[in-house]
Amino acid sequence: MISDKMSKSLQAAICIRDIFEEGKKLADIYGKENIFDFSIGNPNVEPPAIVNESMIEILKTEKPLALHGYPSNIGHPDVRAKVAEYLNETYKTDYTFENIAMTSGAAAALVLISNTFLDISDEVITFSPYFWEYKSYVESLYGKLVPALCDQKTLQPDPDTFRAAFTERTRLVFINTPNNPTGAVYTEESIRMVCDILREKEQEYGHPIYLVSDEPYRQLAYGGIKVPYIPHFYKNTLVVYSYSKALSIPGERIGYIAVGSDVDGFAEIMAGITASMRYLGYVNAPSLQQKMLLKCVDASVDVSQYERNRNLLYEGLTAMGYECIRPDGAFYLFFRALEEDDAKFCAEAKKELILLAPGSAFHGPGFVRASYCVSYDVIQRSLPAFQRLMDSYRKKEK
Amino acid sequence: MISDKMSKSLQAAICIRDIFEEGKKLADIYGKENIFDFSIGNPNVEPPAIVNESMIEILKTEKPLALHGYPSNIGHPDVRAKVAEYLNETYKTDYTFENIAMTSGAAAALVLISNTFLDISDEVITFSPYFWEYKSYVESLYGKLVPALCDQKTLQPDPDTFRAAFTERTRLVFINTPNNPTGAVYTEESIRMVCDILREKEQEYGHPIYLVSDEPYRQLAYGGIKVPYIPHFYKNTLVVYSYSKALSIPGERIGYIAVGSDVDGFAEIMAGITASMRYLGYVNAPSLQQKMLLKCVDASVDVSQYERNRNLLYEGLTAMGYECIRPDGAFYLFFRALEEDDAKFCAEAKKELILLAPGSAFHGPGFVRASYCVSYDVIQRSLPAFQRLMDSYRKKEK
Repeated sequence: MISDKMSKSLQAAICIRDIFEEGKKLADIYGKENIFDFSIGNPNVEPPAIVNESMIEILKTEKPLALHGYPSNIGHPDVRAKVAEYLNETYKTDYTFENIAMTSGAAAALVLISNTFLDISDEVITFSPYFWEYKSYVESLYGKLVPALCDQKTLQPDPDTFRAAFTERTRLVFINTPNNPTGAVYTEESIRMVCDILREKEQEYGHPIYLVSDEPYRQLAYGGIKVPYIPHFYKNTLVVYSYSKALSIPGERIGYIAVGSDVDGFAEIMAGITASMRYLGYVNAPSLQQKMLLKCVDASVDVSQYERNRNLLYEGLTAMGYECIRPDGAFYLFFRALEEDDAKFCAEAKKELILLAPGSAFHGPGFVRASYCVSYDVIQRSLPAFQRLMDSYRKKEK
Repeated sequence: MISDKMSKSLQAAICIRDIFEEGKKLADIYGKENIFDFSIGNPNVEPPAIVNESMIEILKTEKPLALHGYPSNIGHPDVRAKVAEYLNETYKTDYTFENIAMTSGAAAALVLISNTFLDISDEVITFSPYFWEYKSYVESLYGKLVPALCDQKTLQPDPDTFRAAFTERTRLVFINTPNNPTGAVYTEESIRMVCDILREKEQEYGHPIYLVSDEPYRQLAYGGIKVPYIPHFYKNTLVVYSYSKALSIPGERIGYIAVGSDVDGFAEIMAGITASMRYLGYVNAPSLQQKMLLKCVDASVDVSQYERNRNLLYEGLTAMGYECIRPDGAFYLFFRALEEDDAKFCAEAKKELILLAPGSAFHGPGFVRASYCVSYDVIQRSLPAFQRLMDSYRKKEK
């Protein structure tokens, strides 16, 4: 009935959302408080109060027809100017509203960009492990996602796998730091290496290759670590941002694309993004969520709550003997499964009512992802369950 | 720099949005009050007060994390249940929340459905003239849009052109009534004819062919005319709705897809739509706009204002000698251009500061579309300009 493309994709899907839905069912059986659901990146720190205050004020003061009417496809000029101003202050850039396109979150932005740049069989490189939906975004438009495996000790981009991933058809590179699923913040050294290779490949192939920096976790970095702003290192960068995590509003779908005026083909790219807003049915990012940003562009959730969670989970699991790579950002801990088959390990964990996402779903087999955007209390209460899980594997080994 | 697909599409685009943007520029030069902008379907009747009231109440009473967090990809179950209940009461259907997927408006819904059903080179038939973006929706996913020209006297579907449009590759038929750009409400007789031919073709080709009923103007019908509810006439129907027009909130992007449980492949279709929400980057329709519907599902703008506009414009232009087909719904008047080349005619009209959309953009050459979702006063003041336009053509003829 449905297309072959969709049919195959549904069969192949290792869908973290399914674990999430299953978690809801388990909660019904065992009680929500007894489930340790680390499966999905659903923010749990309260949105800053200014989000609702701003929305209410707008609803009370703006003329409804103007507020709820069609803005330009890429957004309200005043909102785009506000975003530009914030970025200029924060990163010493020189954007104006013309460099900013408001989108329905970062996922939308990545698909809009893919639709702007990709013909059938064009390729997008990304560093793996990667957010599993990247593959769907690119393949829905008949492009090909090519993973470049990160160094397995550091989870930083690896120059050899990256270089080997390029072909004549490479059009885009997706980079995501702080990273989902690993929590790694790519170092300035890594970024410089990536950008040097990109310049080398642009020259080799004689056409621009665009770096798409997917940064929904930009505000979520811990221990004072600095997240490099990618356009400072590579001209042909498109920045993709979402307010889902910084403001804890993932259900509201609001974010943007920032494209510097010096990016090769700037005008064409903005025209392509604008057209893609219509062609893919977005029309525009929701108007009220856009306007809300006029007061919230520099607001943030209390990031220290995530940091506290990270410390508890990382230190707890490490102490038990789990092999964890310390995450510096986002709200994910990526650690080695206790057996080769990470899906089987997740099934074992579920017996302890611990819900984890298998690394294979992120092109990172042998690992699992724990999303620690849960209450501190859940992590505390989960530790004995993690200990039992470890014990059960140690028993098997004997 | 950008893809060939996008590049060609940008060159070919006759974009009504461009006229809209140009209108803004003309308004700067001549003053907004002197421009007769009939170019775009941007609702001008005030949203019902309940829209803002409902949003404010939700913002004040719901827990922010739950309100702004991720709902299921196809929406909040309580909202979907509310929509189902409304449809059941109105159309004697038997939907539950499982038959409803909340989407970011009707445009999104059409793309999500296209992504669910189409492989490369699969075909979608639609009755022309048609809303020009249909072509972009289908072609962005490498499908083919096949127009079946309506009867030029009545603007109702024509059995001969419709029958001739089918091939082995036909997967979907898009139907849009009340229609953009013509304002025609397809009669029950037309609907029955369309559905009979569909059943005939399903049998001929041995597989389901789905009718996608795009109904953003369902509430906007005049003179007590009845808009038939398509699933009553054809089982394999997917209904696509948007609240943009009924509530005057096109910037907020909220609508739904309704699929009856008896539609062939129901479960697979819902799974495909759910996956497409993620694959195309939508994730979910904006959460606040969804929740707003709990109180607004049966609200409506004051439709009589559009009817009054229709009467004034239709009667005014007809009296001057323009050849108009009386529109029974939506807020569009489709009338014959005064010369063969409708784009040239639009350019002539612009000299009188009348902005119209050329019929060619809708696969309806020789006609133009006037969107009468403007103030009554604008229509009144435009009539002398329309008269001058007519006079100038009559002068040329001599």
